[in-house]
Amino acid sequence: MRQLPASLGMRVDEIDTPALVVELDAFERNLQRMTQAVAGRVRVRTHAKTHKCAEIARRQIALGAVGVCCQKVSEAEAMVAGGIGDVLVSNEVVGAAKLARLATLALRARIGVCADDAGNVAALEAACAAAGARLDVYVEVDVGAKRCGVAPGAAVLALARCIVGCRHLRFAGLQAYHGAAQHLRSMAERRAAIERAAVAVRDSKARLEAAGIDCPRVTGAGSGSFAFEIESGAFDEVQPGSYIFMDADYGRNEWAEPLPRFDQSLFVLATVMSRPTADRAVLDAGLKASSVDSGLPLVWQRPGLACVRLSDEHCVLSVAPEAAAPVLGEKLLLVPGHCDPTVNLYDHYVGIRAGRVEALWPIEARGAIY
Amino acid sequence: MRQLPASLGMRVDEIDTPALVVELDAFERNLQRMTQAVAGRVRVRTHAKTHKCAEIARRQIALGAVGVCCQKVSEAEAMVAGGIGDVLVSNEVVGAAKLARLATLALRARIGVCADDAGNVAALEAACAAAGARLDVYVEVDVGAKRCGVAPGAAVLALARCIVGCRHLRFAGLQAYHGAAQHLRSMAERRAAIERAAVAVRDSKARLEAAGIDCPRVTGAGSGSFAFEIESGAFDEVQPGSYIFMDADYGRNEWAEPLPRFDQSLFVLATVMSRPTADRAVLDAGLKASSVDSGLPLVWQRPGLACVRLSDEHCVLSVAPEAAAPVLGEKLLLVPGHCDPTVNLYDHYVGIRAGRVEALWPIEARGAIY
Repeated sequence: MRQLPASLGMRVDEIDTPALVVELDAFERNLQRMTQAVAGRVRVRTHAKTHKCAEIARRQIALGAVGVCCQKVSEAEAMVAGGIGDVLVSNEVVGAAKLARLATLALRARIGVCADDAGNVAALEAACAAAGARLDVYVEVDVGAKRCGVAPGAAVLALARCIVGCRHLRFAGLQAYHGAAQHLRSMAERRAAIERAAVAVRDSKARLEAAGIDCPRVTGAGSGSFAFEIESGAFDEVQPGSYIFMDADYGRNEWAEPLPRFDQSLFVLATVMSRPTADRAVLDAGLKASSVDSGLPLVWQRPGLACVRLSDEHCVLSVAPEAAAPVLGEKLLLVPGHCDPTVNLYDHYVGIRAGRVEALWPIEARGAIY
Repeated sequence: MRQLPASLGMRVDEIDTPALVVELDAFERNLQRMTQAVAGRVRVRTHAKTHKCAEIARRQIALGAVGVCCQKVSEAEAMVAGGIGDVLVSNEVVGAAKLARLATLALRARIGVCADDAGNVAALEAACAAAGARLDVYVEVDVGAKRCGVAPGAAVLALARCIVGCRHLRFAGLQAYHGAAQHLRSMAERRAAIERAAVAVRDSKARLEAAGIDCPRVTGAGSGSFAFEIESGAFDEVQPGSYIFMDADYGRNEWAEPLPRFDQSLFVLATVMSRPTADRAVLDAGLKASSVDSGLPLVWQRPGLACVRLSDEHCVLSVAPEAAAPVLGEKLLLVPGHCDPTVNLYDHYVGIRAGRVEALWPIEARGAIY
């Protein structure tokens, strides 16, 4: 482990850069706003793929979350090692070695997983039988994301029957996450997408009921849509992740009632490393410091400065004539384009409050993509 | 450290995924081709920002490289810890804490750094005086990349004079890397860009000579252009990095004499985790497994399969009607869009030859962005 980017009590301008900074006041407001917005109407299972950090998971659970979601077995292993007792791998897990690890993990914590294939269900059963473990298995339904998942309706019933027939698996319900809906820009588009998802969920549940199969739970939803899933009445549990941090891409969404307005709390702190011309400044945070899959980072609260391109270790800024000129060595905050893959580039969060470093949290599941 | 993705001797289809795989035959051919192409005409200082791995650096040095380039102090620290005795930080380093680390490192190895600002040169001198160290300092010249660096000519002379006047700094020459030229698609465009860079270098060297300042070395060039820098006669040292691996974006370049044709040796091994429809397959390697800043990954040697989008942990493939259908659990190789930031997502390389795992190399400088 290389040296930490900061030490407790340090001023923000003393933090080594690039650093992944969390403004703790904003972060804590976001946690509270989610609790208030859900208001106990459904269960909250926060998504740990965003933060990959057991400390943050523990804080979410302290505020009422029933546990976390993960996307990978290794991510779930990191969360269980960090004391989280209830983890849903909200994804398919394929391959004997991974399934053996998943089953072993289910001996130490309540573990759920998704399935969209009968052969995979048989492999899950075999892994659990070998480990003497039991897994919660959700049928993933494609409610519009066009990624994984079976089609709503008859295919859901067929796969649920497979699971119900397995001695070591518990049929836990439906995973119905509409990822593509999260970044539809207008509230109206997102509401309409989730209404269609809810129709698909209700149809699938009706098939299960008609066949006498109990559907204990429908889980899904993200930060950009969860209020619509709750209002639909078709969901029992929501899986928001990004609300704790936000990012430039979520910032481009329309936010209005019934969704709360979350604050930007996650930043990349960067240093001005070159001022080659009056209209150009270069920061020390490039593609290895900020993910650009959803667009370039934004400069925080410095009018007239804009990121124009990133290379591996550089961010080139344009400096407008009227802008306060950035000075060599000055530190600026960037809002990452997409929070989740940006977090995955770092080993620590530097938590700041009132201009000082208050916390250093390890990102235990950084790189946990297995 | 979490478990390794593979063990020695394992078959490729047993490697846990996503994994960063190096096809060792192709990798070794690339190393040889660079040595042959340069043919001793200039020094080779390979760029370690691509691989971040001391084992690879040692192999490059065994084939004649004089040392490596790094972009960050923490990357240089990792290379020196791995036994590399000559490192050029081909970048500006700003801030007292970083400069103190750089100066301390210069007590253990030959260390160079770039500068494009007189105040930064003064800070370098102060850091070296405090540590009792000496640094090689290169003036970075903007030869067309429009990133860092002073303008060619008078500004180079002025900054070189600053360096020459510092007791603890050695003026080592010019850093003249044209990053933007590397991905100009046609040979003609790249040749023309490097011809312009060479003019800028010659003009700057002439100014230094006229002022009686010796310019020991001009260093620069990348995998996409190095033969042009050599042919220009204006460069003493080249800094290729990506040639060892290649990527989808370099693959879109025109490659012809005098540049050798390098082979794709770096891959992301991924598993088919879902087959929801006949025309769609989903792999377990998303944005946290393959950087998309330079475009989506390509599917290797599987006609009719194409990556259509990535999310955090998924790669959605289109499956053409005539394609051999990918089977759930099957492992496919992806060519990453951009090698450097993809490497930075992993802790290990899995070296394979003839279908078996032959090597596991730690990526010591993964995340070394400080």
